[in-house]
Amino acid sequence: MSYGSDQHAVTFLGGPSGTWSVERVASVVGETLPPIERLEIVPGHVAGAWSLRGVTSHARYVDRSEKTRLDAVSPALDRPEATRAALIPIRKSARWWSLPQDERRAIFEERSRHITDSLPALPRVARRLYHSRDLGEPFDFLTWFEYAPEHAESFEALVDLLRSREEWAYVEREVDIRLSRFRQTA
Amino acid sequence: MSYGSDQHAVTFLGGPSGTWSVERVASVVGETLPPIERLEIVPGHVAGAWSLRGVTSHARYVDRSEKTRLDAVSPALDRPEATRAALIPIRKSARWWSLPQDERRAIFEERSRHITDSLPALPRVARRLYHSRDLGEPFDFLTWFEYAPEHAESFEALVDLLRSREEWAYVEREVDIRLSRFRQTA
Repeated sequence: MSYGSDQHAVTFLGGPSGTWSVERVASVVGETLPPIERLEIVPGHVAGAWSLRGVTSHARYVDRSEKTRLDAVSPALDRPEATRAALIPIRKSARWWSLPQDERRAIFEERSRHITDSLPALPRVARRLYHSRDLGEPFDFLTWFEYAPEHAESFEALVDLLRSREEWAYVEREVDIRLSRFRQTA
Repeated sequence: MSYGSDQHAVTFLGGPSGTWSVERVASVVGETLPPIERLEIVPGHVAGAWSLRGVTSHARYVDRSEKTRLDAVSPALDRPEATRAALIPIRKSARWWSLPQDERRAIFEERSRHITDSLPALPRVARRLYHSRDLGEPFDFLTWFEYAPEHAESFEALVDLLRSREEWAYVEREVDIRLSRFRQTA
């Protein structure tokens, strides 16, 4: 396995140790995942009792003007104040994947406004999308978000909004994992 | 590794045995691959001294009307008369992958007419595209074609045409492997 400079592979590894404390693991649609205590994001694809693998990849739907607007407002990961995180693995249905590109795009943006309606929350929420579908993983995407505690409400509003839209009718499995940065006690 | 009903993973395995006799392995752009005598397409992802892994996936550019036209003219693989084959692994540049979807689509179809100009050859040439990029393989795609010897000229014309277009300026590595179905001599 060897990725170019524009891609990188990670494994979300659950277990007794790790940078993130897991606060809850809850099913939104379909089968949940086993509860874990802590989570580490490790480079490369490794095996583990609780592990989800993904790879960063090129954008699949955004057009040039959306990319420009997204790049302008998207914060970096690993901001010191962003002590809360969410890991939301999602699988879409075979019906979704059988649609041609123009129809998936129309549902994603023209009808569900995935990008446009995410923009207002983005200055406060850092996010990274990992692709898993071509890896034969149980989920198609692993979405990772980081935000400061005072922006939890913005984040919840964003998640609620996306879930209420037509695009989400094609989500057949979704698990919502919430985390906070682990702090060593003295 | 476990794929849904709409995807399947294969390994192109080169070696001393296999269903296909390899006639040539030639670089088109960039580094070539070692010569091999025979090739087998095996299900799943396996390791091998000469191996290329890919997975069938959803269509990335075609719209509804193109899908309908493609489906109408595309023959099945494994036709008994299709005794010639080509395996053409391709890697596109980081510059290609950094383009947003609308610009990749415009280069692919509106300017390079990848679909429209492939249609006339398709009733004679069966093809399947395997994706490798998210797997960390050395190529982004593995394209597989099967045709009868009397349609070799149609196939060469199609390959020449695609290579002459703007889309191909983004191809940074391409190897052209030609094969024929191995016949046991009595």
